[in-house]
Amino acid sequence: MAGALPARWNRIVKIGLLAGSGRLPIILRERVTFHHCLDLATWPRPLGAVQAICQTMKQAGCEALCLAGAVDRQRFHDLDEGGAWVAQRAGPEAGDGQLLDALIAYFEQQGFKIRGAGDVSPSLRTPAGVLTGALSFDPTSGLVRARTLGQQDVGQAVIHCGETLWLYEDAAGTNTLIKRAGEIPAAVKTLFKAAKPQQDLRVDMPTWGPETVRAAAQAGVRTLIFEAEKTLALDLDEALDQARHQGLTIVGVAP
Amino acid sequence: MAGALPARWNRIVKIGLLAGSGRLPIILRERVTFHHCLDLATWPRPLGAVQAICQTMKQAGCEALCLAGAVDRQRFHDLDEGGAWVAQRAGPEAGDGQLLDALIAYFEQQGFKIRGAGDVSPSLRTPAGVLTGALSFDPTSGLVRARTLGQQDVGQAVIHCGETLWLYEDAAGTNTLIKRAGEIPAAVKTLFKAAKPQQDLRVDMPTWGPETVRAAAQAGVRTLIFEAEKTLALDLDEALDQARHQGLTIVGVAP
Repeated sequence: MAGALPARWNRIVKIGLLAGSGRLPIILRERVTFHHCLDLATWPRPLGAVQAICQTMKQAGCEALCLAGAVDRQRFHDLDEGGAWVAQRAGPEAGDGQLLDALIAYFEQQGFKIRGAGDVSPSLRTPAGVLTGALSFDPTSGLVRARTLGQQDVGQAVIHCGETLWLYEDAAGTNTLIKRAGEIPAAVKTLFKAAKPQQDLRVDMPTWGPETVRAAAQAGVRTLIFEAEKTLALDLDEALDQARHQGLTIVGVAP
Repeated sequence: MAGALPARWNRIVKIGLLAGSGRLPIILRERVTFHHCLDLATWPRPLGAVQAICQTMKQAGCEALCLAGAVDRQRFHDLDEGGAWVAQRAGPEAGDGQLLDALIAYFEQQGFKIRGAGDVSPSLRTPAGVLTGALSFDPTSGLVRARTLGQQDVGQAVIHCGETLWLYEDAAGTNTLIKRAGEIPAAVKTLFKAAKPQQDLRVDMPTWGPETVRAAAQAGVRTLIFEAEKTLALDLDEALDQARHQGLTIVGVAP
């Protein structure tokens, strides 16, 4: 057996999870043993108590934080000292992205490292390549369109219907976009989804999964193009299984 | 809803699994719904009955085959017409790799497409990046050494112990290599594992997983470097969990 190891090799980073709603934090907890988990849905205080959240995670011994899942912005009130810092940094007109950036800045200022869902569970990241089916066109222009939409903080996905029609995602989300596409009689429909170019990829990566594939199949969307590495595939193998059995094509395009 | 779709969009590729032994085919069956599965361990005929295997998969309606898991070469006897074709193509002095290549050629000649485990389940592929811990040196030379070893069809992994000692994997496999490293008192030990440059990556990709991490931790190997995309990580998240809690560093290096 080895002799004494240099201390730096024994360094263990204790990662805590700040879990919002949706499937992502559930999957993460199945896959990753977090040092502590704070479920924001059952956290008894308003989400403006940011300093209290920090203290809880520190008392639990966490050195790094992973933020995952959706958080209802309406619950960001009754600010404590930390919440006030975040609100001031974000500014009065802050969008969701800016508020999140300020929150991250606060956690880092308090000494936490930030780990993305794709860092603690890299197998969640959409891999590059034709994942199933076959691709017969260059997906770049559609992805550029999705990115441009993201830059405007509107949505992260677009659907190409037939030759000339493009549908754009809005605040209602990707599944609503896909349902809208279902009402268009075009024969060839393709979904493109990409990360917002300006977003902090350690938090709030765009996600997709079996539900997306199911909705796409129903709506006649036969090809789904995702930005590889910068999107998260929830239950990738199940999603590909479904796509194979429905004859859909799924492609991850390297950024 | 969409109107009639072009027939090519409704094309479903029916993939069958030829399952050898070990954890890989078990994981694949958990993750992927195969059209048919032929378990080679319980297949009542000798593995030389390659034509019979083909017929079984064709009768089940399979159009593509995924080969996964280890196969005992000693069972390749009592050749039927297909087996004889494979043996002749491989030649009398064939190593494992050449025999496998000939087998693949036979299946393809019979009209099957070949799909790798990393194709039907891309989340099995080791992702690129520092997956946990921190890397303080350039891993290239160790990986080159592992690849050179693979080129000689000896093994696929090497361990660097201290400054000058390198241990090489042989037919006994990676875990035995790691145990040997445990008997060396060097403070810094690093494992490198890469695909053989000449091997068909659709079959027989090198694998690693939680067992590798456990063995490494016990043997004082604190850093594990794998070739990304060209190695398969069985139970990646569990493996990273273990590495985090043991303070090990795991890195996927893009080829």
